Amino acid sequence: MPDVHPLPDLVIEPIVRAALAEDLGRAGDITSLACIDPDARLTAVFASRERGVVAGLACARLAIHALDPAARITLHAADGDQVAPGALLAEAEANARALLSAERVALNLLGRLSGVASLTRAYVDAIAGTGAAIIDTRKTTPGLRALEKYAVRCGGGVNHRMSLSDAALVKDNHVVAAGGVAAAFRAVREEFPGLDIEVEADTLDQVREVVEAGADLVLLDNFTPEQTAEAVALVAGRATLESSGRLTLDNARAYAEAGVDYLAVGALTHSVSVLDIGLDLRADS
Amino acid sequence: MPDVHPLPDLVIEPIVRAALAEDLGRAGDITSLACIDPDARLTAVFASRERGVVAGLACARLAIHALDPAARITLHAADGDQVAPGALLAEAEANARALLSAERVALNLLGRLSGVASLTRAYVDAIAGTGAAIIDTRKTTPGLRALEKYAVRCGGGVNHRMSLSDAALVKDNHVVAAGGVAAAFRAVREEFPGLDIEVEADTLDQVREVVEAGADLVLLDNFTPEQTAEAVALVAGRATLESSGRLTLDNARAYAEAGVDYLAVGALTHSVSVLDIGLDLRADS
Amino acid sequence: MPDVHPLPDLVIEPIVRAALAEDLGRAGDITSLACIDPDARLTAVFASRERGVVAGLACARLAIHALDPAARITLHAADGDQVAPGALLAEAEANARALLSAERVALNLLGRLSGVASLTRAYVDAIAGTGAAIIDTRKTTPGLRALEKYAVRCGGGVNHRMSLSDAALVKDNHVVAAGGVAAAFRAVREEFPGLDIEVEADTLDQVREVVEAGADLVLLDNFTPEQTAEAVALVAGRATLESSGRLTLDNARAYAEAGVDYLAVGALTHSVSVLDIGLDLRADS
Amino acid sequence: MPDVHPLPDLVIEPIVRAALAEDLGRAGDITSLACIDPDARLTAVFASRERGVVAGLACARLAIHALDPAARITLHAADGDQVAPGALLAEAEANARALLSAERVALNLLGRLSGVASLTRAYVDAIAGTGAAIIDTRKTTPGLRALEKYAVRCGGGVNHRMSLSDAALVKDNHVVAAGGVAAAFRAVREEFPGLDIEVEADTLDQVREVVEAGADLVLLDNFTPEQTAEAVALVAGRATLESSGRLTLDNARAYAEAGVDYLAVGALTHSVSVLDIGLDLRADS
Amino acid sequence: MPDVHPLPDLVIEPIVRAALAEDLGRAGDITSLACIDPDARLTAVFASRERGVVAGLACARLAIHALDPAARITLHAADGDQVAPGALLAEAEANARALLSAERVALNLLGRLSGVASLTRAYVDAIAGTGAAIIDTRKTTPGLRALEKYAVRCGGGVNHRMSLSDAALVKDNHVVAAGGVAAAFRAVREEFPGLDIEVEADTLDQVREVVEAGADLVLLDNFTPEQTAEAVALVAGRATLESSGRLTLDNARAYAEAGVDYLAVGALTHSVSVLDIGLDLRADS
Amino acid sequence: MPDVHPLPDLVIEPIVRAALAEDLGRAGDITSLACIDPDARLTAVFASRERGVVAGLACARLAIHALDPAARITLHAADGDQVAPGALLAEAEANARALLSAERVALNLLGRLSGVASLTRAYVDAIAGTGAAIIDTRKTTPGLRALEKYAVRCGGGVNHRMSLSDAALVKDNHVVAAGGVAAAFRAVREEFPGLDIEVEADTLDQVREVVEAGADLVLLDNFTPEQTAEAVALVAGRATLESSGRLTLDNARAYAEAGVDYLAVGALTHSVSVLDIGLDLRADS
Repeated sequence: MPDVHPLPDLVIEPIVRAALAEDLGRAGDITSLACIDPDARLTAVFASRERGVVAGLACARLAIHALDPAARITLHAADGDQVAPGALLAEAEANARALLSAERVALNLLGRLSGVASLTRAYVDAIAGTGAAIIDTRKTTPGLRALEKYAVRCGGGVNHRMSLSDAALVKDNHVVAAGGVAAAFRAVREEFPGLDIEVEADTLDQVREVVEAGADLVLLDNFTPEQTAEAVALVAGRATLESSGRLTLDNARAYAEAGVDYLAVGALTHSVSVLDIGLDLRADS
Repeated sequence: MPDVHPLPDLVIEPIVRAALAEDLGRAGDITSLACIDPDARLTAVFASRERGVVAGLACARLAIHALDPAARITLHAADGDQVAPGALLAEAEANARALLSAERVALNLLGRLSGVASLTRAYVDAIAGTGAAIIDTRKTTPGLRALEKYAVRCGGGVNHRMSLSDAALVKDNHVVAAGGVAAAFRAVREEFPGLDIEVEADTLDQVREVVEAGADLVLLDNFTPEQTAEAVALVAGRATLESSGRLTLDNARAYAEAGVDYLAVGALTHSVSVLDIGLDLRADS
Repeated sequence: MPDVHPLPDLVIEPIVRAALAEDLGRAGDITSLACIDPDARLTAVFASRERGVVAGLACARLAIHALDPAARITLHAADGDQVAPGALLAEAEANARALLSAERVALNLLGRLSGVASLTRAYVDAIAGTGAAIIDTRKTTPGLRALEKYAVRCGGGVNHRMSLSDAALVKDNHVVAAGGVAAAFRAVREEFPGLDIEVEADTLDQVREVVEAGADLVLLDNFTPEQTAEAVALVAGRATLESSGRLTLDNARAYAEAGVDYLAVGALTHSVSVLDIGLDLRADS
Repeated sequence: MPDVHPLPDLVIEPIVRAALAEDLGRAGDITSLACIDPDARLTAVFASRERGVVAGLACARLAIHALDPAARITLHAADGDQVAPGALLAEAEANARALLSAERVALNLLGRLSGVASLTRAYVDAIAGTGAAIIDTRKTTPGLRALEKYAVRCGGGVNHRMSLSDAALVKDNHVVAAGGVAAAFRAVREEFPGLDIEVEADTLDQVREVVEAGADLVLLDNFTPEQTAEAVALVAGRATLESSGRLTLDNARAYAEAGVDYLAVGALTHSVSVLDIGLDLRADS
Repeated sequence: MPDVHPLPDLVIEPIVRAALAEDLGRAGDITSLACIDPDARLTAVFASRERGVVAGLACARLAIHALDPAARITLHAADGDQVAPGALLAEAEANARALLSAERVALNLLGRLSGVASLTRAYVDAIAGTGAAIIDTRKTTPGLRALEKYAVRCGGGVNHRMSLSDAALVKDNHVVAAGGVAAAFRAVREEFPGLDIEVEADTLDQVREVVEAGADLVLLDNFTPEQTAEAVALVAGRATLESSGRLTLDNARAYAEAGVDYLAVGALTHSVSVLDIGLDLRADS
Repeated sequence: MPDVHPLPDLVIEPIVRAALAEDLGRAGDITSLACIDPDARLTAVFASRERGVVAGLACARLAIHALDPAARITLHAADGDQVAPGALLAEAEANARALLSAERVALNLLGRLSGVASLTRAYVDAIAGTGAAIIDTRKTTPGLRALEKYAVRCGGGVNHRMSLSDAALVKDNHVVAAGGVAAAFRAVREEFPGLDIEVEADTLDQVREVVEAGADLVLLDNFTPEQTAEAVALVAGRATLESSGRLTLDNARAYAEAGVDYLAVGALTHSVSVLDIGLDLRADS
């Protein structure tokens, strides 16, 4: 797998600092202030407690550095790595108060993004060898879209559009508003002649209609795997096909084997469990 | 159940506007721009597609109003309501482009917060009648803590501290850094004599130690239900008890029946599935 | 007295909204939420409880409107007005929760700015008829400079420079850094030939030196009234003179009568007592 | 006295940087630019010119570092220290322009916060030995609440609620809006069963009423010391008592000796004089 | 020509409000405050004083509304319209102070964006009928990219990538850093297999090299029209071609007739003259 | 020429960081990520490709440092320097990805500001020896006013008011709104007795009227050089004179020789071409 390219720190840092401000509140980490010497230093390791794919190590690094610019942080894993329970991800030597005050924000971001990456990877693995790819949606957490889409890439998934500006996708509500799927499609084609246009279809008849109208991608919404196979046969390569709407880890392979190009999985970002990662102090620290 | 008090719009609105900016991107919703008349209006309803607890209706309202200040929005449910599949939550009459451009942000927030509320409610129901309460953690989404803690309240849960400033909670890493649990506790007590102090305990011996030292709350981390019952007996009302770390919907009742006061469930906010809510255009709109 | 020109709402509003966010916190005004009906409306009046000069009514108006855009607010006084105890300043009819939630922020700003205006007016009155004017300094509250300098104007005072960019004032530390007062003055004159330059002088000798060097304004720092009179005689109209550093309401007139043009009073903004203004509910509301 | 815990730099730094931007204006410190060599360095000391309590040294440090990251700053006092006139607080060796450009912001914050701390300490000393404590209010400067409440702690005071979210305090206007003090209290109790609730009382009858209703804290508003003593006797330990509204340094002890637990002093933050602190260049610098 | 789709107000409004804050300064429009009655109203028209293409009318509308929410603004032209000298663009009836205070910001944005659109249109017209299109670059004004790229569309131009995230363009410096153009291209292709990749070529040999390597677009940098024709012949339709680097209004047609697909013109946004638009008060207002 | 004083980094840095965020987009510089080794370093030089005046080197420095804090940057020119084609301006040794990712933002700011400075210098040179000065206007790019006015200074120009707060300038629209030029002037004079007031005049009669009324500066709008000479004679030193409205590089000298004090040139900031500056990799890097 090619490496996943890091996001610029400039993009991540404001999110991390806002998260720290949210968590520190008006008076800071009063527990650490009360029971830890201001000059004490600690060494701790970020370790995964379950199998999964890591994403977001830069968030953890930036969180600790925001509170202790002199912290020394060594990464032992890279975003996109598949790790086993107990795997050492990173080691931090830092001011003790800073380290413990940054811990929760570091883990909240690292755990969530690793959860996205791990779920993505599970879907990717479920359809391995079929030629289909897992693609994300705009069902992301407000404020974290760039990070979550990055995590999808870390899990081996593909990004659909980043924002409403990036691509045209004619959905059921556009069809209603425009007075029919063909009318909606033509309106978009006329406006953006050079753009690939995706159109949602709810029935085989609609698939036929939009492909004949010239849609570049067709979103098969809530089709069964059998209906999907029919759609693939019907389209016969004239458009790229994307399944959406009833996908689970159990049935994803059936859809992929039906011959579509993409499986759009909103759950990658809207219903994700954190990967359980902990920060453990070194025995000798 | 008492009503859940609304968050001020002033708190929610910046989050909604930032989410819209994130989703609109540099050029806006090009699909709607291309296929919908600029003056067209639509009526649509937010409807739940599954059973759950609603939270975040103000987010949906503010998202639509941000793009069409003249939109008319009527709520048919209130945050905290338990709804059945098909339940009508709200109705919006608005500029068609504005409504469809705001749809995803409205649903992302409404679905996520309703997911938090629904999961909370499931835990609350699982321990109904036991006298224990479900409490959240700081394992929230960066940037959304106030909203997610609000959603926990909508689901019948109780909020633990909002930030590190709000309460003292001595955890395992503080113990290491401070050189023992009693030392850590005493340091905090000395600093904040009037404050209730919570201390994490990993063993019955630690429970005994911290209760005798005067801890007001004890966090029983990763205890079994049986160990929990022993801790309850040991403490004998001298401190409030909170279970943490191995809680699931299946075993929550066992912990509650063991006699603790609070069950801390990080999953309420760190591993939540959205409640499936859709925006459906009215047939006649 | 000419009216004081209002600051643009665009300048004030971000300060008011940030203050409200600071005061509402994460969950809003829980007291009002708990004990006041969401649809209740109240009429209340802002009334001064002591004699003074009003400044900042727009802050109060914007605070209430920020929480209830439909509030009806009628002003019964204008910024710059001198008011007696009991004077009615404004009346607000608004949603009850919104009104009480906005009360503290409205009063914090209105009271503080009125305090600045009132103290300024006291100094202005103390030197009435002398031909001297009261001028402020950069010793303002971080984040509130535009508002506090506006309040000084409301009290009949004059604004010194708004920022370090606006005028040249050579102070003692510049003199040390530049290697002498004449050297410092010449350096500034050379750089900004068309700019009036003010120079701080600590002794009569320095006054003579800087006036002969061509200073446009001389800041007489920590002079007695007698020394001030000598300086006035010495300068003989060749430069504008400003007294600074030992001014109190008791001795201000003596300085003014010594013949200076300006009395710089840092206390106008750095050591001000709020004007006691209250928000009283109408008996029949 | 226990040390006062520092606020995180992450909380202070945005305030300091905004204050610097406000003071630098569009073109920077034109005086220093004109008369000081760009590479010159200076050593200067922050020294108190009067007796008081220091608070806000981190603000001064961060202001200088913001303009000269290579500045070397040595603290010779700690926040919370009581200092005599002439006391050396800190020493800074820095680029000369940076030091003089940061001077005003550093002193504005340091002087103001030290003023808050000093006034607090004066009240604390006035009631020494009585068992009562000095507590602050929400009458803080917009934008500076966290800093000013920190300064109260530096002076030996206690913080009341940080925001409207943090605690319930039923005041006179709530009582009017809710239709009576008991009704208001019960409404809050019902909503927040586990929360300590404070209720304002204006008469002994109201004190009796709210204590019997179960109020945890009673705010005795505008009572005389004699009435306060009666209230203490009446309550007989059933609630915590807080005096408010007519407190001065002269009468504070009388209130404290009447037996209340807290004296709420709005003036700590709303009517404070700066502590006179100066920045003096070293003779040999 | 298809209509140009408007940018969302949500995207434009923060830019307009920041521009107003920048222009109003600390005390507002002191001239208008001094000489215009606070309740006076004016009617004024935005009129073009020269031939050109309009872009940015929403900026003017939002600027006036920001200072007078009750202003009535009627558009008499649409973004993208070609207008003659004297053409009426919009009419505003508003508070007189608000209108004059907003004038400069409204005109600065409207004039600049119309300048971009007009210059774009001049290039588009210069190559009319050739089949080539005018495309913009990332040489935009910091902070205004979305607006300026919108203005390019208003002028009939095409947008190249919005940011470094949106597309891959291998330029001369990447080639140096990667060790050769083919190596650079292959590295990008391997990383982003599904992405169209553009590669800069400085010579015909490089054109041949990158087309054979599989580049989708080739940027012909600083070619003459003759060399461009050779490149077109050489590529023979295997890649899309874009000319860059020596384009002027005089020679653009020669490049277009040489057969390239796009002419990249940095001057569209980096060296643009405002369109001269004025705000004229109505005689009877 | 005296050196131009630098703007504080604190003022420039937020603009640079926002520009970088705008250019990096959601995923960063994907081209550099794909084809450049993460640890590679490069040395590059900023060199001017045409004759002009440099302004904005700090922007380039801050852009590179924002992406690589360890970059080493050496300046070989200073803002305000006149440079020949090929002139070396600065040299940067930095992480290769960071350098190339920052390149466009660095050049966009440096080129634009140098364009402003160069155009200003051209006007300054055109009127050399006449005693008149070139002055800018408020026709600046929204968000960049402080930088562009700084660039005007770098080119030898003079800054007119920074914002509407800074000075009074009675223009044609004020005259209409105030009911005549004398009425407008008197209103401003009454409000701001100590302030120099500038009044726009469109005819010689108006010049006479406003000078007799006491205007300190008169803006001669759209006068011919001949009319300008008549105005100079008419005013006879009673007011400072500023020409505006028909100025070009060709006719500027004629206006200056007519005897005015200032030539206001909006084009300095509203219609500027970038100075062509490039970033060239060192052969051996």
